Amino acid sequence: MNAVTYEHIKTCKQSGARLGIVHTPHGSFETPMFMPVGTQATVKTMSPEELKAMNAKIILSNTYHLWLRPGNDVIREAGGLHKFMNWDGPILTDSGGFQVFSLSDMRKIEEEGVHFRHHLNGSKLFLSPHKAMHIQNDLGSDIMMAFDECPPMPATYEYVKASIERTSRWAERCLEAHQRPEDQALFGIIQGGEYEDLRTQSAKDLVSMDFPGYAIGGLSVGEPKPIMYRMLEHTTPLMPFNKPRYLMGVGSPDALIEGAIRGIDMFDCVLPTRIARNGTCMTSKGRVVVKNAKYERDFTPLDEKCECYTCKNYTKAYLRHLIKADETFGIRLTTIHNLHFLLNLMEQVREAIRNDRLLDFKEEFFEEYGLNVENPKNF
Amino acid sequence: MNAVTYEHIKTCKQSGARLGIVHTPHGSFETPMFMPVGTQATVKTMSPEELKAMNAKIILSNTYHLWLRPGNDVIREAGGLHKFMNWDGPILTDSGGFQVFSLSDMRKIEEEGVHFRHHLNGSKLFLSPHKAMHIQNDLGSDIMMAFDECPPMPATYEYVKASIERTSRWAERCLEAHQRPEDQALFGIIQGGEYEDLRTQSAKDLVSMDFPGYAIGGLSVGEPKPIMYRMLEHTTPLMPFNKPRYLMGVGSPDALIEGAIRGIDMFDCVLPTRIARNGTCMTSKGRVVVKNAKYERDFTPLDEKCECYTCKNYTKAYLRHLIKADETFGIRLTTIHNLHFLLNLMEQVREAIRNDRLLDFKEEFFEEYGLNVENPKNF
Repeated sequence: MNAVTYEHIKTCKQSGARLGIVHTPHGSFETPMFMPVGTQATVKTMSPEELKAMNAKIILSNTYHLWLRPGNDVIREAGGLHKFMNWDGPILTDSGGFQVFSLSDMRKIEEEGVHFRHHLNGSKLFLSPHKAMHIQNDLGSDIMMAFDECPPMPATYEYVKASIERTSRWAERCLEAHQRPEDQALFGIIQGGEYEDLRTQSAKDLVSMDFPGYAIGGLSVGEPKPIMYRMLEHTTPLMPFNKPRYLMGVGSPDALIEGAIRGIDMFDCVLPTRIARNGTCMTSKGRVVVKNAKYERDFTPLDEKCECYTCKNYTKAYLRHLIKADETFGIRLTTIHNLHFLLNLMEQVREAIRNDRLLDFKEEFFEEYGLNVENPKNF
Repeated sequence: MNAVTYEHIKTCKQSGARLGIVHTPHGSFETPMFMPVGTQATVKTMSPEELKAMNAKIILSNTYHLWLRPGNDVIREAGGLHKFMNWDGPILTDSGGFQVFSLSDMRKIEEEGVHFRHHLNGSKLFLSPHKAMHIQNDLGSDIMMAFDECPPMPATYEYVKASIERTSRWAERCLEAHQRPEDQALFGIIQGGEYEDLRTQSAKDLVSMDFPGYAIGGLSVGEPKPIMYRMLEHTTPLMPFNKPRYLMGVGSPDALIEGAIRGIDMFDCVLPTRIARNGTCMTSKGRVVVKNAKYERDFTPLDEKCECYTCKNYTKAYLRHLIKADETFGIRLTTIHNLHFLLNLMEQVREAIRNDRLLDFKEEFFEEYGLNVENPKNF
């Protein structure tokens, strides 16, 4: 039996979205689910207890960053990433592939792996399927990701075709190199850019290798959202029904709902934590930039409907003051709010699936959030 | 009756230190007590709940900073500082005097107050006894401080004599300007540099004005500790027995113990929070600079004896990683530890007073902390 399994609960009669449960060695979580990102073995500014209080059930951490600092050997000696960072719930680690292709601009791809430069100090580095598995085995994450190439968008058909074929060969190498299949589940990553037949080819290749779960990569990399949604509509039917489906790098409220409608179970994105750091908040009525002067004497919470710690205890005026004064506690409070907002949104999505009304919920949410207008704000 | 009162519990037979309770409109706390500093309406990186969990009973905030940002009018409209920052325990605010004399290097002292420049943007500002009272009345702190001049050390006898006489005249103005004596207690500040007869003169002046409490200012400004201790020994006997005694700006473990021995009830200092931000921690065995390479694979807590959240859940290796990676959560964890350390130290001091053995405790603590050596580290 795989280390991670998917239990299907029901399909939304109105939208086709899936309600399910993903079981992992460190606990189970309902899907569709959003995963907060803890790049450097910490979800920026948050404690594990705060994450649990907002019903975060699984977090993501980054192989590339942890490999470079503190080093996967340090984390292995600490007893693994869960123990190192005091998080006893499920953890998903990426493979480092995305960082190699997004952070480093000097790289050379070979059949064995990729030579590239450290994104900060410029030193020479090499990452490969074998190495990415070794690091993730040291980290001990519940869900590991295969080492893939994430091609830019747009890229030529020929480039993407060669890329997905290499990614498939690398996926085979990952399966061979993975040392802990009994307690770590390795997911394959379907690539293919904006080319439907290449998405098909990539999906077929990977599904034939029988991974315990699958991700869709190479989307949400700057392309218009209609392209992403078209690729999702094309790809999810090619993915096994009885395994988790993970859309990488998506975290805007509209894309989370649209992704769920297209059959996605898991999402991750730095968006809620990143925008929190300059005081931008997602609320039921749309975006609030709490640094704005109009909130100087606004003694109401960020979101009257919100039940998070921030909204129950603090005003926009106080948040504005803290963010303007560069006070860390302000970023803690906006981070709590944004993560709670997305986790609560996914809870509402699951409830809507349960009641076969996810399309109705989408309309209601879009209307209130301000997405049903021409050129709406992105989040 | 004064808004703040001192209840004497007992005097340590061995040391002469006082055990007491200070009663304020927002609750009572045992003394000797250390007060964490929340300069900008937040104890840096901490939530109110975290402060309560470490038994912080009273916090300090800064008039100068809050006056400039967000503005005392904003805080008054919010319902006062307690409500603005969600802290329902006692708050002490300083008068801004110390910042005027320490942060600004262009200033002109007049009988009415001080003209000076904004420490960041250089704009012209004026602070006076009347203004300092007005701001603190807006903030609504439980304990307000009189607007004083904090002369540098060393300073000439003539300079300090003129300064304390002005500070006494300003103290009269503060008493006149204070609008809320029924729920805010105004403390006088005894100055006098390193001149015993000027300390005497300042104490007599202020005691004659019958403030509800008194502080000793102008110490811990860079002078050798023996001078500070000599000034304390000289000054505390001149202070009313039945009112709180507050030593401003002291937070190193040795000076806290020595201050208590000399009859001080309250202390504040940015030291524990400031050093936490570069990973320097106070432990029962002395200073630990957790960024040091030797902790890379140290999977033990900062302090085996410590019961704080940080020491119960995290290793030095993890703290080192977070601090080196500029992760806020690392600073949260070192801040929790340092504040807990000093608050727990004061609990131990109170217990030693209760058992008439504060001098013994001091010897034991100094020995273990590494202070009983020549040229010990400062904290």
